[in-house]
Amino acid sequence: MSQDNPHAYLDQHEERAIAELSEFVAIPSIAAQSDHADDVRRAAEWVAARMTRAGIENVKLVPSALHPAVYGDWLHAPGKPTVLIYGHFDVMPPGPLHLWTSPPFAPEVRNGRLYGRGATDDKGNMFVPILATEALLQTVGALPLNLKFIFEGQEEMGSPHMGEFVAEQRDLLACDLVINADSGQRSEEQPTQTLSTRGICGLEFAIVGPGADVHSGQHGGAIQNPLHAIAEVIASFHDKDGTIAVAGFYDDVRELSEAERIAMATEPFDEAEERAKIGIPAFFGEPDYTPRERTTIRPTLEINGIWGGYTGQGPMTVIPHEARAKISCRLVADQDPKRVLDCVIAHIEAHTPAGVAVEITPFANLARAYHLPADYSANAVVGDLLEEMYQRNPLPSRTGGSVPILAFFHESLGVYSVGFGFGLPDEGIHGPDEYYRLSSFKRGQHAYVRLLERLAAWQPGQDEA
Amino acid sequence: MSQDNPHAYLDQHEERAIAELSEFVAIPSIAAQSDHADDVRRAAEWVAARMTRAGIENVKLVPSALHPAVYGDWLHAPGKPTVLIYGHFDVMPPGPLHLWTSPPFAPEVRNGRLYGRGATDDKGNMFVPILATEALLQTVGALPLNLKFIFEGQEEMGSPHMGEFVAEQRDLLACDLVINADSGQRSEEQPTQTLSTRGICGLEFAIVGPGADVHSGQHGGAIQNPLHAIAEVIASFHDKDGTIAVAGFYDDVRELSEAERIAMATEPFDEAEERAKIGIPAFFGEPDYTPRERTTIRPTLEINGIWGGYTGQGPMTVIPHEARAKISCRLVADQDPKRVLDCVIAHIEAHTPAGVAVEITPFANLARAYHLPADYSANAVVGDLLEEMYQRNPLPSRTGGSVPILAFFHESLGVYSVGFGFGLPDEGIHGPDEYYRLSSFKRGQHAYVRLLERLAAWQPGQDEA
Repeated sequence: MSQDNPHAYLDQHEERAIAELSEFVAIPSIAAQSDHADDVRRAAEWVAARMTRAGIENVKLVPSALHPAVYGDWLHAPGKPTVLIYGHFDVMPPGPLHLWTSPPFAPEVRNGRLYGRGATDDKGNMFVPILATEALLQTVGALPLNLKFIFEGQEEMGSPHMGEFVAEQRDLLACDLVINADSGQRSEEQPTQTLSTRGICGLEFAIVGPGADVHSGQHGGAIQNPLHAIAEVIASFHDKDGTIAVAGFYDDVRELSEAERIAMATEPFDEAEERAKIGIPAFFGEPDYTPRERTTIRPTLEINGIWGGYTGQGPMTVIPHEARAKISCRLVADQDPKRVLDCVIAHIEAHTPAGVAVEITPFANLARAYHLPADYSANAVVGDLLEEMYQRNPLPSRTGGSVPILAFFHESLGVYSVGFGFGLPDEGIHGPDEYYRLSSFKRGQHAYVRLLERLAAWQPGQDEA
Repeated sequence: MSQDNPHAYLDQHEERAIAELSEFVAIPSIAAQSDHADDVRRAAEWVAARMTRAGIENVKLVPSALHPAVYGDWLHAPGKPTVLIYGHFDVMPPGPLHLWTSPPFAPEVRNGRLYGRGATDDKGNMFVPILATEALLQTVGALPLNLKFIFEGQEEMGSPHMGEFVAEQRDLLACDLVINADSGQRSEEQPTQTLSTRGICGLEFAIVGPGADVHSGQHGGAIQNPLHAIAEVIASFHDKDGTIAVAGFYDDVRELSEAERIAMATEPFDEAEERAKIGIPAFFGEPDYTPRERTTIRPTLEINGIWGGYTGQGPMTVIPHEARAKISCRLVADQDPKRVLDCVIAHIEAHTPAGVAVEITPFANLARAYHLPADYSANAVVGDLLEEMYQRNPLPSRTGGSVPILAFFHESLGVYSVGFGFGLPDEGIHGPDEYYRLSSFKRGQHAYVRLLERLAAWQPGQDEA
């Protein structure tokens, strides 16, 4: 009977949960596209309504400088820890529609998988803890600890305004621990625990030459071509071996201990298989680090776009007014994104050749790397649970991407975030035919019920600051 | 009376000529845009019909691999030189329409100027010799020499198929001298004689990286970024001072004599005024040459376009599948465009870094530089006429741009081309609000009558080969 068993309740309501997830995924809440701003709000309202129905209290939309976030809580467990659950209801743009088997915002279940943009990243994964909370409240009638929820609507844009949001809402969000539902496992058999994500900063810059596009026959050879100048600047960012040549860039980088590097090196990594997956003839980069280290514990400076002059068919003899490029840097502990941006800006200014001007526009999405001590006590709680579930030791993992808000939680709330989610790496995140395994959806709901029970016994404050 | 005076005939028919030029300019004969191919043919047919009405014989459209050319002749002056008059009836695309005061293909006369795309380049200038020929045939009843005409319809594309055309039609086009009506003067007061135009070659190349666009957080730092690689290749083309660093590039360059360089240096050149016109803080380029030399007697290698990755608004963390760039080289005597292309291709291949592939597509528009000896006898005939007309010595000039067919005439027909046209540099060539001064239109018609009379007395074969 489900009257007092949350797991039975979840089983009984399995079909309804899938139907609801479909409804949620059908909302095209694309944060980056301003004509979808109403859809992002609609998704926020859907989340708020569903939380309220689940029995979560004080549910509200909290405005940010961009899209609203959704807050809710249940705080009736005095003496127990307060845990903040995080996720996001915005999604990436769908990309080319012809690559999708079924339309990205008309979710469809095929072979035990729900297909649609955001199915796994992060709508499926963020809905899971709401369902688990409902199961507990509808059966036991109470939660074993104090719970808060914060779901944001701008993660896929790099959370440009969530730093100030978390700082402003520090009382509302105050907690002992964050559980990050925007997370996953390595495979259906192998659990994982994320120890770090990289920070980020970036900018766009323009090299400005003649007052207008000019004829390359008339002026070529006597004036600085902005396309040559921008190539010169970009080529100066790295040494031949891929090491970043920007003064001060590596200054604050925290080196991993030998023990940590050895632990990383023992993790499985089939170089030939990885190369084939990416479609490259060879790996490349800092010689003293392995490919996995270069993408996780080392910072990067990558050009993400460049354009200028004539890009149509055939020849056209023009020297353009300007050339532009976009840069992003991935950061590791203990780099300060503002300081790194300053180093990159100084480098561009110092390496812009004579005869042209430079204009630099820093991007708003600044975030530090997030780094979780491997021996953090709540990490062990989650690790033990995963081991029981999978009958296998979770592997530690370091992520090359960024979840900016984890650093904001650490900075403004003084708490660590521990990942607990069931997305899998083959589920088409950010690509076409994104899906979420319904088996993971179910597994996650039961796992979250158990996680909340375990965390009720966890003692905050036992770790060194 | 105009019965026996071609100049009186021209004055009598001035209004009709302006109306006809308007009709000609109204045809949007844009060679580069395939949906205007019919308009290019319509312009060819307009020219052919007008030539026939003028009394020119054997008028016909001659097909090329691209647009047809128009031929005609009058060959009833035995013992006299045979002169081939050249021009083109295709035009540049109009560019942004909102920058035009009146629509580019609805010609309008304002303040003694006929506005419209192609008004000066080259429809007005190529119509002039047809009108002068008609005036002679309708009054004197004969020409003082043998005349051929060839008008092409692909000059604004770089005449990609005119090299083979001239070679194939060498019998039809055989002559003692070419008069190039795609030409101009320095100002209304100062005549000019063009001594050289630069040759051209070019290519597009792609740097190909991962099999698809990949996430720069996931893979950045461990793979070669095609945007970094293309910047490295482009930066390697030039030394810091602008000298081209491609092995073999300068090998065949003919250096001007000290006397020629001194002659060039004495021509008026207001550096501050030129900088202000172009809108640059400083000139740049090969240190041992002046800005004017760099754009006329020195070859160049210029990037005309570059693109790759994300070029929309804001940040996006992608490493693209590929990056592309377009290159054009301006060539001087005695560079072989094929050989220069080979040098550039070898350079790109040698400088492409590890971890990416390169794909190179050479362009079809290959042309040698065209170089006319200053003391060429027919040049003196034209120079004397210009001096009489303007009461001023014509200045020698070297052009940075290319008129590819001049080299093809020299190669296949073994003859020099001498410029005789009345376009002026401020007439918006290739830009918005292009116009032709009606005063130049009239001056040109009378001048061509006198030119044909003078050339009748010119002795071909007096120059060294």
